Amino acid sequence: MSAPIEFYFDFSSPYGYLAAAGIAPLAAQYARSVVWRPFLLGAVFKLTGSGPLPSLPLKGPYSKRDMVRSARYLGIPFNFPDPFPISTQAPARSIYWLEQQVPERIEAAVLALYSAYFVDGRDISSPQTTASVLAGLGHDAAGVLAAVGEPALKERLRSETQTAIERGVFGSPYIFVDGEPFWGHDRLDQVERWLKTGGF
Amino acid sequence: MSAPIEFYFDFSSPYGYLAAAGIAPLAAQYARSVVWRPFLLGAVFKLTGSGPLPSLPLKGPYSKRDMVRSARYLGIPFNFPDPFPISTQAPARSIYWLEQQVPERIEAAVLALYSAYFVDGRDISSPQTTASVLAGLGHDAAGVLAAVGEPALKERLRSETQTAIERGVFGSPYIFVDGEPFWGHDRLDQVERWLKTGGF
Repeated sequence: MSAPIEFYFDFSSPYGYLAAAGIAPLAAQYARSVVWRPFLLGAVFKLTGSGPLPSLPLKGPYSKRDMVRSARYLGIPFNFPDPFPISTQAPARSIYWLEQQVPERIEAAVLALYSAYFVDGRDISSPQTTASVLAGLGHDAAGVLAAVGEPALKERLRSETQTAIERGVFGSPYIFVDGEPFWGHDRLDQVERWLKTGGF
Repeated sequence: MSAPIEFYFDFSSPYGYLAAAGIAPLAAQYARSVVWRPFLLGAVFKLTGSGPLPSLPLKGPYSKRDMVRSARYLGIPFNFPDPFPISTQAPARSIYWLEQQVPERIEAAVLALYSAYFVDGRDISSPQTTASVLAGLGHDAAGVLAAVGEPALKERLRSETQTAIERGVFGSPYIFVDGEPFWGHDRLDQVERWLKTGGF
């Protein structure tokens, strides 16, 4: 089995959501696993002087329209959430907690959390809501709640975000295949070609 | 015949170059014509506080890599030019001049100017170089040189750039199909679906 695909994403990122559902089947098709790497896009924006897309002049109104249209194009349910953006420490830390316990259940957790926010409009910035979503998958709600407040998991998320920045990650989703970086849900076609051909 | 597709682009835009070759055949396939709208991206960047992609922190190194890789992915010849970016008043004004004279020859002129810069590395910011490229297509070099210095064509480019900004154009390429905006060469797949279905 070749090296896993690294999938960097922020839980408040619409394009991260649009790519999340596609990356695992794509990886499986080429006998790859996915390493899920939630990080805090806000920390990156501080460095680059950028901000959440919908808040930017000119680009803002377009990007909201593009997100909704891209979801329709892909046939993925999507309701632009309010509030947006949100802090994503709670869901991100919960994923690193699951990684220590039951790594094989991360994919389902990522998809459930994303869809709680981008389909059902639930505010997953709240640790209670994150815990409730994961409880719906059979995880221990009290365990999740305790985990997202744990210093070790706070530190883990900080250091993963730092690593992301050091690797040049400036947006979400950001995907590495054998070290080659791909930014955006609209690069999944190139990711697929890369997987198929071993680079082009 | 339905309304033409409006193709906004800057001659210094790599992604504009990558989309330019594809837009006319795509339009023709759905019985549409293309209205070519060169504008000055620099004026937009002043408004949005953005800058040429390769100059941005983190995003810069990635975007150069992505431009080269996207060209390979599409099978389009591409050599990252030096100098980059360049001022594009001369080639842009020459297109508005052709529009007054021989609008049916604009497409070939756009593709020739783009490929002079992004394949052959010729600096088309120079009016002489722009004139020489168009002379290669049989246009009158002296006529081009005179045109790019004409006050009326300077004003035309200014007002087209202003119109672009008023319509929300913040990048290149930026494409309107029946009023629906699409940003980026990587939205040609959505443009095609839109043309095919009349909106989705």
